[in-house]
Amino acid sequence: MPLVRIDVPDHLENGLESQIGDLVYDAMLESLKVPVDDKFQVLTRHAESQIVKPKSYQGIEYSDQLIIIQITLNEGRDTDVKKAFYAKVAHSLHSRLNIRKEDILISLVEVNKENWSFGNGEMQYGP
Amino acid sequence: MPLVRIDVPDHLENGLESQIGDLVYDAMLESLKVPVDDKFQVLTRHAESQIVKPKSYQGIEYSDQLIIIQITLNEGRDTDVKKAFYAKVAHSLHSRLNIRKEDILISLVEVNKENWSFGNGEMQYGP
Amino acid sequence: MPLVRIDVPDHLENGLESQIGDLVYDAMLESLKVPVDDKFQVLTRHAESQIVKPKSYQGIEYSDQLIIIQITLNEGRDTDVKKAFYAKVAHSLHSRLNIRKEDILISLVEVNKENWSFGNGEMQYGP
Repeated sequence: MPLVRIDVPDHLENGLESQIGDLVYDAMLESLKVPVDDKFQVLTRHAESQIVKPKSYQGIEYSDQLIIIQITLNEGRDTDVKKAFYAKVAHSLHSRLNIRKEDILISLVEVNKENWSFGNGEMQYGP
Repeated sequence: MPLVRIDVPDHLENGLESQIGDLVYDAMLESLKVPVDDKFQVLTRHAESQIVKPKSYQGIEYSDQLIIIQITLNEGRDTDVKKAFYAKVAHSLHSRLNIRKEDILISLVEVNKENWSFGNGEMQYGP
Repeated sequence: MPLVRIDVPDHLENGLESQIGDLVYDAMLESLKVPVDDKFQVLTRHAESQIVKPKSYQGIEYSDQLIIIQITLNEGRDTDVKKAFYAKVAHSLHSRLNIRKEDILISLVEVNKENWSFGNGEMQYGP
């Protein structure tokens, strides 16, 4: 039950944010082993000036097309799983959508599995 | 001091997001025992294509009106309190606003009570 | 690698959100000791009705210009550091931009340092 927020600049091609969302979901299936159909995302386009980034940070140079992907998900994935996920997202967005790997920022926020209701007012993952 | 983000599709009736916010606040008063007037919310309407959801997930079928409620709040509520809150929100949005219970996604993000300043540059809940 | 979300009402002067972002970054450099150029922000303007706040909460009175600053950052700052950061942001926004100190809400969400990729599909802060 991850919830994914994807923020993109609005000079990106229309609809590209949906394609990004699809590929992030695919990477979550493969690397994070989320269940099929566990695909809940909020996509937002922003004026370029409203996605603020440095020219570069620790050697990585950003263009005006930084994409920010923030994912709230259950805690418990280990280091290797997270690493594989980051690599998969970057590879996939680059090879399929021609997005620069430098321009992909991923932030994970981990929560307890009791912290979700995905419908009907029930705690589906709780005890 | 929860901070509530509510994301709704923009084909919902105008202003419905405010009514949703009011009812979420009422449920927080009743179930989470937040203090009176502890009501801070960011409401956002999105093009339908920008709230991404599956047709169904684990037996729950979604319509084109999924509402996403993400709440940052202090840690410490137990399982029963969270369950009661989810149930209250779903009951309330359904009975008062005719929203399908299936279309209500709730995500909690728990933080330390030192992690807030709600004005004046002070840490109101800290030691 | 904090990720900062700043939500402001849209009757604020155009571009003021960028100035707020700059000052929040300066306060992060000074008080949180983030590295230079660690400046990643999503700024969003909202219709006034979509930033919901009480008339007052615990003695603090809000105007129609509440600014909400939510920061995802690595865990580990102690109480005094957080206090100094809140004070610095409020002082700075007030003295430089004439924003009421009462109208500044700050929320921190702490995460593990493995929870970031800031480009190239790598886990820059991991082991």
